[in-house]
Amino acid sequence: MKLIIDALGADEGAVMVAEATKLAMERHDFDAVLVGPKNQMEPILSSYLSRIEWIDTNEYITNDEHPVLAIRRKKQSSTVLGLQRLNEPDCDGFLTAGSTGALLAGGYFITKRIAGIERACLAAVIPNAAGGTVLVDTGANMDTTPEILFQFGTMGAVYMSEVLGRSNPRVGLLNVGAEPGKGDKRTQQAYELLKDSDLNFVGNIEARGLLDGSCDVLVADGFSGNVALKTLEGTAKTLFSEIRKGIYSSTKTKIGGALLKGVFKGIASTYDYKAYGGAPLLGTRKPLYKAHGNSGAQTFALAIPELLHYASSRVEEKIASRVEGDRKNGTDEN
Amino acid sequence: MKLIIDALGADEGAVMVAEATKLAMERHDFDAVLVGPKNQMEPILSSYLSRIEWIDTNEYITNDEHPVLAIRRKKQSSTVLGLQRLNEPDCDGFLTAGSTGALLAGGYFITKRIAGIERACLAAVIPNAAGGTVLVDTGANMDTTPEILFQFGTMGAVYMSEVLGRSNPRVGLLNVGAEPGKGDKRTQQAYELLKDSDLNFVGNIEARGLLDGSCDVLVADGFSGNVALKTLEGTAKTLFSEIRKGIYSSTKTKIGGALLKGVFKGIASTYDYKAYGGAPLLGTRKPLYKAHGNSGAQTFALAIPELLHYASSRVEEKIASRVEGDRKNGTDEN
Repeated sequence: MKLIIDALGADEGAVMVAEATKLAMERHDFDAVLVGPKNQMEPILSSYLSRIEWIDTNEYITNDEHPVLAIRRKKQSSTVLGLQRLNEPDCDGFLTAGSTGALLAGGYFITKRIAGIERACLAAVIPNAAGGTVLVDTGANMDTTPEILFQFGTMGAVYMSEVLGRSNPRVGLLNVGAEPGKGDKRTQQAYELLKDSDLNFVGNIEARGLLDGSCDVLVADGFSGNVALKTLEGTAKTLFSEIRKGIYSSTKTKIGGALLKGVFKGIASTYDYKAYGGAPLLGTRKPLYKAHGNSGAQTFALAIPELLHYASSRVEEKIASRVEGDRKNGTDEN
Repeated sequence: MKLIIDALGADEGAVMVAEATKLAMERHDFDAVLVGPKNQMEPILSSYLSRIEWIDTNEYITNDEHPVLAIRRKKQSSTVLGLQRLNEPDCDGFLTAGSTGALLAGGYFITKRIAGIERACLAAVIPNAAGGTVLVDTGANMDTTPEILFQFGTMGAVYMSEVLGRSNPRVGLLNVGAEPGKGDKRTQQAYELLKDSDLNFVGNIEARGLLDGSCDVLVADGFSGNVALKTLEGTAKTLFSEIRKGIYSSTKTKIGGALLKGVFKGIASTYDYKAYGGAPLLGTRKPLYKAHGNSGAQTFALAIPELLHYASSRVEEKIASRVEGDRKNGTDEN
């Protein structure tokens, strides 16, 4: 396998990406095309040069830029150069910790979507005691339609069964209440499309479903999906930081904290969103993978085997045939 | 002051409401119109009969019914009878733990909206270390426009300054990122309206703003506002339940838990959403107040002085004059 690794755009920069690549090369069998400042990275990767191809550039797309304009104008940016290289048949996937918007725009204009897919979506695994729930969309798309939400459900289900190995996954719809008929018009209509499909649809799920694992795939528009994700992360962070502050407030509480260290560690590891190095952008013709923007080398290094596994699962072909099937069913019914 | 208290529709029923009313009558000076089964409640309130008027009924609107149809058809329901009584000049406010949808529909068709207000919104205080943030809307409206979101901001700001006593409140807009231009089209346009207003607008706020108190009033459409609220409550509940499970797992951790009891108690009290008995539905001509559906008597009893204070603040008049001012400014600019 050959992966394109975008070394620019991560908060910690190209050196971190080189260190992560080194960690992954020690453990996994793959070749890499590294896109970024060669002079910064080559010394770190000196033992693996035979497995590396370089695309030397210093330009990249920032989070503040208009993604579509930037993809069109910044021809020397790491995202544009990397995605162009991905289009060649010897390359299997693309990984970046840079701008999500640029990845999405590049996915549309350079990699292209799977035939019949209206929008690509980010599919992050939300860790929970039930082994995790995939949230689609986590924030790639802001304005969507019921049909687009339905496609997110299809793509999320294919990803869950083919890549994460949970067959016939339960697909839920993020909503403000469990009863049918709840929610805004978009969600009400998406409910009908999901109910009438051959997905294993379990109905409306309130946001706490992300934590109790009451579904394997949770469908949401990117706006409310992102709100749910960030509320979850923010709440957990605030509560743990308050507990930490409390523990450090006296000798008595310090002892209490020491006795409960294992408990806190267990909970943190069950719900640690950095247990996953990244998330795929589902719906493009070749595998695109987004690592956390604030990744350190250890976390970024996790994303590499995730992408290797994802790319080897040939999810795009399965999504394409599902979408083709849905389209035919739709035609038959009309 | 005379409050109408809907005794039906709460999970725990009319006896709980009677007990809550008794608790509140012991401590606060007000008269009540109790709407519900008189025979169940009269014995509990025997010491306060001179302060109570009865509207005897057993009918109420459930959460499963279509609210607008139910308000039109169930003429003997506690919500319809209570709201009709509220329209008489001697009554000052209405409290219910029943269906939010029925309260909203009754507010529109019986109490009526303030002139110029397009939609009423639920304004819940989210407790946090900064003294709380008002979230408008918490879930009354599913399909909204930028103009409606702007009005939520105006009403939330009036409520925060006039009722909760924080002057010139910082108004934020719930969004997926802090930068201007983020979000869906509705949110982007609401941003412009809020920015150009005379509100103390502090820009886009990510969901964690509910916890760190980076704004006093957070504007959201009812769908994503409700998702944020439920994710917050669900995450806190899950984490505390995991901690409790961990504490009970061994003698060592039980001792740890005992030593940290004060810490957990402090955090739970800072973030306890039941510290407030309920939330107003802002935008109607007379004060409507929603208590938690799963209230016990203690929590429901908290909502009564909250409503007394809210009703005495004459928020409706201040909202009406703000909306009138906004309308005039709008006309001047055109």
